[in-house]
Amino acid sequence: AQDWPQFLGPNRNSTSPQKGILRSWPETGPEILWTANIGPGYGGPVIKDGKIWARGANDDKGQSFTHFKSVEAFYKATGTLPLNIKFVIEGEEEIGSSNLTKFLSDKKDLLKCDAILISDTNMFQPGVPTITYGLRGLLYMEVEITGPNRDLHSGSFGGAVANPINELAKIISKLHDKNGMVTIPNFYKHVMKLSKKERENFKRLKHSDKNFAKELDVKELQGEKGFSTLERIWVRPTLDCNGIFGGFTEKGAKTVLPSKATAKISMRLVPNQDPQKIAKDFEKHIRALAPKSVKVDVRNLHYGYPVVAPLDGDAIKAASVAASKAFGKKTVFTREGGSIPVVVDFMKKLKAPAVLMGLGLDSDNIHSPNEHFRLENFEKGIISSAYFLDEFSKT
Amino acid sequence: AQDWPQFLGPNRNSTSPQKGILRSWPETGPEILWTANIGPGYGGPVIKDGKIWARGANDDKGQSFTHFKSVEAFYKATGTLPLNIKFVIEGEEEIGSSNLTKFLSDKKDLLKCDAILISDTNMFQPGVPTITYGLRGLLYMEVEITGPNRDLHSGSFGGAVANPINELAKIISKLHDKNGMVTIPNFYKHVMKLSKKERENFKRLKHSDKNFAKELDVKELQGEKGFSTLERIWVRPTLDCNGIFGGFTEKGAKTVLPSKATAKISMRLVPNQDPQKIAKDFEKHIRALAPKSVKVDVRNLHYGYPVVAPLDGDAIKAASVAASKAFGKKTVFTREGGSIPVVVDFMKKLKAPAVLMGLGLDSDNIHSPNEHFRLENFEKGIISSAYFLDEFSKT
Repeated sequence: AQDWPQFLGPNRNSTSPQKGILRSWPETGPEILWTANIGPGYGGPVIKDGKIWARGANDDKGQSFTHFKSVEAFYKATGTLPLNIKFVIEGEEEIGSSNLTKFLSDKKDLLKCDAILISDTNMFQPGVPTITYGLRGLLYMEVEITGPNRDLHSGSFGGAVANPINELAKIISKLHDKNGMVTIPNFYKHVMKLSKKERENFKRLKHSDKNFAKELDVKELQGEKGFSTLERIWVRPTLDCNGIFGGFTEKGAKTVLPSKATAKISMRLVPNQDPQKIAKDFEKHIRALAPKSVKVDVRNLHYGYPVVAPLDGDAIKAASVAASKAFGKKTVFTREGGSIPVVVDFMKKLKAPAVLMGLGLDSDNIHSPNEHFRLENFEKGIISSAYFLDEFSKT
Repeated sequence: AQDWPQFLGPNRNSTSPQKGILRSWPETGPEILWTANIGPGYGGPVIKDGKIWARGANDDKGQSFTHFKSVEAFYKATGTLPLNIKFVIEGEEEIGSSNLTKFLSDKKDLLKCDAILISDTNMFQPGVPTITYGLRGLLYMEVEITGPNRDLHSGSFGGAVANPINELAKIISKLHDKNGMVTIPNFYKHVMKLSKKERENFKRLKHSDKNFAKELDVKELQGEKGFSTLERIWVRPTLDCNGIFGGFTEKGAKTVLPSKATAKISMRLVPNQDPQKIAKDFEKHIRALAPKSVKVDVRNLHYGYPVVAPLDGDAIKAASVAASKAFGKKTVFTREGGSIPVVVDFMKKLKAPAVLMGLGLDSDNIHSPNEHFRLENFEKGIISSAYFLDEFSKT
């Protein structure tokens, strides 16, 4: 193959003068001439099958760009804008947005506003305009159980001393009751109840447990009894082990009775659970479940507050009308199981409602190879945004 | 530092002509000039503090060498040997002794004998001659639980689908009852009962639970109720998780709802438990404990049979007298919690009793850096072996 030692090729014109290039793609792919691990790479965006493919194409360059384009279009068409607009662009979300909170505090007078419009969430289904009005919060803990002060031979010591993996497993097994509810004391004390209206809204959304299970290749779904799948993901708090490790974890067999075992356990929280209070209750609970024969260390790795917006606010209503107009369908209202901690910061610091007008799809591979964004969503997103400016300016 | 590009230095004489070498060892060690990862290393043996230090000094070069030296001494002193001796030397124990069983079968006429003497175990305490007459067997299984067909985002899916780590933890938590007994059906069905004589023997052995716990830095010991610590290690079967892994196991937090979680679970077995039968019962039990929402894979990695020799055999009696004479103390009889699968092979193929006259100590660091063997045990071991030849020749 020809050497392309710089971006866009040897002549920076994206053109290869090479001869004898394959005209069709062999079924097993072309012959691999060489491979090398060159670390992470960056490529230019590509448009194919009505989608734009690039790192960040969806999350969140593509989604946020719609608002610039709508402002541009509005200005070109009318020579003015229907309301005063302030953009906040931040590039640190994936590394914890550690500077944003202070910025919002420092500049809260400058950023004063009536509503916060964010496009960083997903549509419920392709073509269905979606406003997300609630996000779960997060509490991420790490639990380390220590038995003996060193790894032991399970033959010479097995049966005489507590095994930290077995003990950690017992603790984890007690974090849910038989109905799938979390057993941490006071965990559900402040959980906001699902309103009748929300429950009905959710029921109207097209969701098939059967397809969902099939897509994940499981025989049946599982979770807290008494709630539908969407309710369990969107409005109910959960507890999951995100990772566990201890002892011998390589291939084969080693008869070690390990000194330590560690679990990463996170909770998705819903309004009005307080992650900091729950962290304390969690730690107390874990310590109460552990036997005297082991030592317990509980670490709070990070947390984020849950959020939910009232469905009858002016901004959310305007966004709903705008999205319906752009997509030609009725807007649906969803909550999301994930967390966007900065949304809470924006709302608290700027004392304004946040509207999440999402344009992504679950299938867009965000954070993964082949991330993409549908051009249709990009275009209708621009129109949604323009309609929103118009609608919200009338309130 | 001078270059030593070959074994024993540039002149192969173990002598360094280098000048200006430190005369005393600085408290924080000498300055490190460079480091390099050079892979595993091998050094010559060193004698210091009455111990010989080298890889295999104890396990099992040092221990087995005592018998060659006793035969040599006997022959030098008397010009003859009191009985016919056959040595079997095998170097594959640490990689599973896969050729030994066939060798024992093939050569069973050549190897015909009245007793099998093995030195590959430990003394109960320094200076206390010890015959080990029982070893636990082993069954090593691996359990893999699969939930969804891929790793999921715990925000988007948490609460909707079974989490394989949580489910694996539940399964592990059910493998022991509240008395610390293993819950696998029929697990204890064939377990040989502890005789009154053995129980009394064990009670007479100096063992302090308090010191044992202190040495391992645990607040209290733990295990099956109704049995002493030595009984739990030597004559009771156990089940331990040797390793567990699943999900995100690096530093920090990642909110993955993993597809898989795996545990390595081994059982130490006692006479007359059959590892192969128990493997089947184990698999059935695990499958019964798992919910429908996950897939279960159970793999049998390897196993070894337990063994116990009668205390009133001629060989064991002769070994007891011999060891008492050599060490000047009463011989104690112990069992060991670990497994030496080849002992069972020797006994079965050659139809002769095995006597385990061990000379190691728990503190000898076998399989670890700084493995060593006490010269006193080496010398008294040679004398024990010589006395054994004499005593056993009289039976």
